Amino acid sequence: MKPDASPAREPIADRLARLGLTLPPPIQAPGGIRLPFPFVHVVGRRVFVSGHGPQAPDGTLAPQRGKLGRELDLVQGREAARLTALAVLGSLQRALGSLDAIGHWCRVFGMVASAPGFNRQPEVVNGFSELILEVFGDEVGTHARSAVGMAELPFDIPVEVEAELELRAPSPGR
Amino acid sequence: MKPDASPAREPIADRLARLGLTLPPPIQAPGGIRLPFPFVHVVGRRVFVSGHGPQAPDGTLAPQRGKLGRELDLVQGREAARLTALAVLGSLQRALGSLDAIGHWCRVFGMVASAPGFNRQPEVVNGFSELILEVFGDEVGTHARSAVGMAELPFDIPVEVEAELELRAPSPGR
Amino acid sequence: MKPDASPAREPIADRLARLGLTLPPPIQAPGGIRLPFPFVHVVGRRVFVSGHGPQAPDGTLAPQRGKLGRELDLVQGREAARLTALAVLGSLQRALGSLDAIGHWCRVFGMVASAPGFNRQPEVVNGFSELILEVFGDEVGTHARSAVGMAELPFDIPVEVEAELELRAPSPGR
Repeated sequence: MKPDASPAREPIADRLARLGLTLPPPIQAPGGIRLPFPFVHVVGRRVFVSGHGPQAPDGTLAPQRGKLGRELDLVQGREAARLTALAVLGSLQRALGSLDAIGHWCRVFGMVASAPGFNRQPEVVNGFSELILEVFGDEVGTHARSAVGMAELPFDIPVEVEAELELRAPSPGR
Repeated sequence: MKPDASPAREPIADRLARLGLTLPPPIQAPGGIRLPFPFVHVVGRRVFVSGHGPQAPDGTLAPQRGKLGRELDLVQGREAARLTALAVLGSLQRALGSLDAIGHWCRVFGMVASAPGFNRQPEVVNGFSELILEVFGDEVGTHARSAVGMAELPFDIPVEVEAELELRAPSPGR
Repeated sequence: MKPDASPAREPIADRLARLGLTLPPPIQAPGGIRLPFPFVHVVGRRVFVSGHGPQAPDGTLAPQRGKLGRELDLVQGREAARLTALAVLGSLQRALGSLDAIGHWCRVFGMVASAPGFNRQPEVVNGFSELILEVFGDEVGTHARSAVGMAELPFDIPVEVEAELELRAPSPGR
């Protein structure tokens, strides 16, 4: 049980700038497919993040497609996971107004499109987890995690991540 | 952060009748396998829905089996996802007494048994999401969602959905 | 909606001893891979359990690797799921101090590495669920569950389980 983060922590926007990280714009599903759900859904203090894949800086899906262990190697997979983290942060920023509203990361479910015999999913999903910890620090960014190998993912993306977070408790003084 | 639904909304049972939708009876696992868990598990205001597959109107598993992109096409997959939504609604109705007890859908995890090269999972799972939105409306039915491709599903069903919901807050006047 | 467990229930440590069950020590990821996340993450009263696999009594990953329906049969798969439950209990004990802190199991997501045509995931994951119910009883141990077939799992383990639980409410008298 962790206390809520101190209000004096560095604003996440400053930390992103300091790390040279830019968040992509909202993704459009390829082929004009209707996605009848929000990328981020807030219920009370709980924040549910829909499955996200890696985006290019212009907001489209990143061009690297296929499976780890066949079309993509470990380095490319880690980069896809890192781009997925940036995509999730972009969605959270737009849905919450500010990434400083986040009190705790809770759960990260990391799915890696895997060719037969590829069993290094944790190293791929580290590309996601390490970015989150770098941006949010341990106190806010720590999360439970699974990293597993999928038969197929939508649009042949190599990585998809679903997550759950919790908003900061309202300050008693406000 | 969405307010709880207004008490004046149309009862879900009326909406189901108006839409001509009938909920199937509880499923029996094929082959008499013991399933040592409930279909719906309520903890406080949180509602955890176990993985459900598509059911026929008589309650048995729907006869369409196999993988999308091989035994089943997109139209059949969407219909399987729609039947899965009806199965989940049947379980929720029996567990909660009334579907009006639901305050918010939170999370839908849509799993599609996928042959190699099938990457249209979102269009399949839309059959689930669209039914939920039709029955509950946006205010209650909106949910975060993932749609992913599985190597295999139990009993060779084409679609399985796990979900989480939240009960309505108790009315202060009661 | 279930009440919190009575304080008079048998301590879980006693029940484990009575059942002859020993919990393994913390796992080390094979090959010295860095795992940048905790095995158990507590946020408020919510307990998020990272994906766990089967461990041998010495804490290493259990030697049985591969897929159900090819390298492993149903009996071996059920045993792998049972060893996964013991691994999860070990992590919970270390994170919470005592398994008696658990108020409710909420959700179990059971993933089975599955060769093509293997569709008996529920029977495999029963090895997990049945141990949890044996140790915690129905009141605390009941959980929603999914059991699904994965293309690949890390380190070629046959079973991985992710879970969510809730801590007991603080006693008003304390």
